[in-house]
Amino acid sequence: MRTIVISIGEELVSGQCVDTNAAWLSAHLADRGVTVLRHVTVRDHRGDIAAAFRQAMVEADLVISTGGLGPTGDDLTRFGLADALGVAIERSPEAEQQIRTFFERWGRTMREVNLVQADLPAGCSPLHNPVGTAPGIAHLADPCRICALPGVPNEMRALFEQHVSAQFTRRSDRTVRARIRCFGISEAALGELLADMMTRDRNPLVGTTASSAILTIRISATAESEPEARTMLGHDVSEVRRRVGEAVFGMDDDELEHVVARLLVERGRTVSTAESCTGGLIGKRLTDVPGSSRYFLQGVITYSDAAKASLLGVPEALIAEHGAVSEQVAEAMARLGRERSGCDYTLAVSGIAGPTGGELPGKPVGLVYIALATASTTEVRRFLFGDHLLREEVRDRSVKSALNMLRLSLLRECGDAAPAAG
Amino acid sequence: MRTIVISIGEELVSGQCVDTNAAWLSAHLADRGVTVLRHVTVRDHRGDIAAAFRQAMVEADLVISTGGLGPTGDDLTRFGLADALGVAIERSPEAEQQIRTFFERWGRTMREVNLVQADLPAGCSPLHNPVGTAPGIAHLADPCRICALPGVPNEMRALFEQHVSAQFTRRSDRTVRARIRCFGISEAALGELLADMMTRDRNPLVGTTASSAILTIRISATAESEPEARTMLGHDVSEVRRRVGEAVFGMDDDELEHVVARLLVERGRTVSTAESCTGGLIGKRLTDVPGSSRYFLQGVITYSDAAKASLLGVPEALIAEHGAVSEQVAEAMARLGRERSGCDYTLAVSGIAGPTGGELPGKPVGLVYIALATASTTEVRRFLFGDHLLREEVRDRSVKSALNMLRLSLLRECGDAAPAAG
Repeated sequence: MRTIVISIGEELVSGQCVDTNAAWLSAHLADRGVTVLRHVTVRDHRGDIAAAFRQAMVEADLVISTGGLGPTGDDLTRFGLADALGVAIERSPEAEQQIRTFFERWGRTMREVNLVQADLPAGCSPLHNPVGTAPGIAHLADPCRICALPGVPNEMRALFEQHVSAQFTRRSDRTVRARIRCFGISEAALGELLADMMTRDRNPLVGTTASSAILTIRISATAESEPEARTMLGHDVSEVRRRVGEAVFGMDDDELEHVVARLLVERGRTVSTAESCTGGLIGKRLTDVPGSSRYFLQGVITYSDAAKASLLGVPEALIAEHGAVSEQVAEAMARLGRERSGCDYTLAVSGIAGPTGGELPGKPVGLVYIALATASTTEVRRFLFGDHLLREEVRDRSVKSALNMLRLSLLRECGDAAPAAG
Repeated sequence: MRTIVISIGEELVSGQCVDTNAAWLSAHLADRGVTVLRHVTVRDHRGDIAAAFRQAMVEADLVISTGGLGPTGDDLTRFGLADALGVAIERSPEAEQQIRTFFERWGRTMREVNLVQADLPAGCSPLHNPVGTAPGIAHLADPCRICALPGVPNEMRALFEQHVSAQFTRRSDRTVRARIRCFGISEAALGELLADMMTRDRNPLVGTTASSAILTIRISATAESEPEARTMLGHDVSEVRRRVGEAVFGMDDDELEHVVARLLVERGRTVSTAESCTGGLIGKRLTDVPGSSRYFLQGVITYSDAAKASLLGVPEALIAEHGAVSEQVAEAMARLGRERSGCDYTLAVSGIAGPTGGELPGKPVGLVYIALATASTTEVRRFLFGDHLLREEVRDRSVKSALNMLRLSLLRECGDAAPAAG
């Protein structure tokens, strides 16, 4: 099934918002064996919307749009779609009833303007929206099916799961895919390690992608039967893991925090944090994982020198002698944080995230010390992330490097040479 | 100047990564008076890349692509562009020298595969990349200029600033724009307040966008001269602010944390945090702002009940009686956190982010108590974000609601009726 995803919104084309809907739809279509050919993003302009639908209807079997279904005057998807289909707009009694019911259920006052959302191109049917006021619009005629979904991500997702997804049975696909996630290796080094596997016409096809210091190796295997494709895929996954070694931290959607969470739970260990320049971001990442209360007990954000003394007991003299951003202070933060929290591990970070604060000699923006205290030792590593990175990038790299130190420590302490299985 | 942005990458079309480059480029082009017509995202497929360039060259005066310039076998932009231009690929000595210099400067070992990045379509010139190994590719012939930039965001941005941006002088544009940012009001309520201003053919044009509980009112005014357009814009901005009131928190790119930061700095106040379900995310947001050490001193992440007692002194009996997610415990966390930190304000959060943990009667997923302790009082608010939200959404709404409580308190305490000026 050839699919095109159209995102509609002035705020997207003008760059005021990043479109996450197209990627979400593509990923969820891929899970159902549907390949997306292209994403197109157009303005809140009736003519542009109509043209995008018209062109997509020629090339694709399925067109999914997001956005432009709201109640305000700049929501023009219904009109653009009507123009592309060559039909007029009609009020749908079914959609009107859905909107009225939504407001009653939530005890909110319906405004007349909300009923505009019940106006659909003739011949189209409304898609009931369980979590918002905007019904979707479906046109299910051959040769091209069209589904217009709202732009608000949780509404779009609910409508996709409820209405669009149901149209595909999970076919016994002959192409199977895996992604291998790596940290702490460059894309070129990876390209060299895997050069013979990354040729263009090879099957399985192997490719790499870099995003925010995480490298993803994508593998897709195609065969006449799914079991055969799975065998080919499994072979390549093993081969890549063997070559790349402990830089592989997980599979598919794994983030470092998921892998660390699994290792901590498996081993029954706990972790606490003592953060300075990351300001709570390590705690945030650890608690992004549902159920994190099993291993994450507490943290302190010691942003000021005084807080490093009062919340952790770091000697003021140590800070005065070496500076807050130093190997010595990071070591003390982790060691004392571990003592005070009673956790098995404590991660501590002190650094200069920038863009200011890099004035002292030998302490440039991007200098970060990360310490990991364990029962037996406190390991401190010095990172120089480089002043070409943004503040948010320095902080992100710091957190990933910290989580990776914890991951490697958990693996090594338990005598487990292989990376965590996905 | 009519511009089309093409994003190239299997990982984008398949939904494995969200494309942030197209939005960034659009926003930065808009600042320079260049309007983007459309974004198109295509796979790592030579024919698709060539087709996207060919079609864009017909419609636009400027085409900017990102991605597909790396050293590995799935980087096909150079080939697709060569096909669209109808030329062959040639090794560029200038690009080769840039790549060699980059590796020497950073003391890294160059791999032969990196020199593939010096292969350009004939007639094109390399764009020097100061922060990475992939040079951009420029084809500056009439009637359509083409710039192919790398996909890694910081490299893309550096090349845009250095090479592409220089091609536009900031023209004296007759269309001027502003965005007004709101929190704590629904899109329909806003639509009703502004209905007469949101008609389709009005000038200035007024539209609204909702994203993660933040509503943005976009206003663009067009006139024969820029001063005239600015006057029209200023009038509408004032009118919108008057109607919407204190739900307006800022302008343009403002986030709640920026506005809170400005208010705290202006008033010389400090803040600390005591977080449970948000796990450090309030601290993270406060310290996203450069220079946040002026007002954010410390925080504690008391994820476990024991940590609420040991790090804040919340009585264990209080937790036993009311539960950790209760008005009483949130109040105690904020009040005691303020006493211990010595800050002017303390924000505390205790809630159930989900998806698990909502088993107790009267304590569903999405229930969050937020407390703000000030010199005179501790205010506690109960939020029921609803179990249709994801864990990350509950946490995000909690942080925004907490920051908004601090914003309103700062405004009111200082007898400032109007929202913070942008």
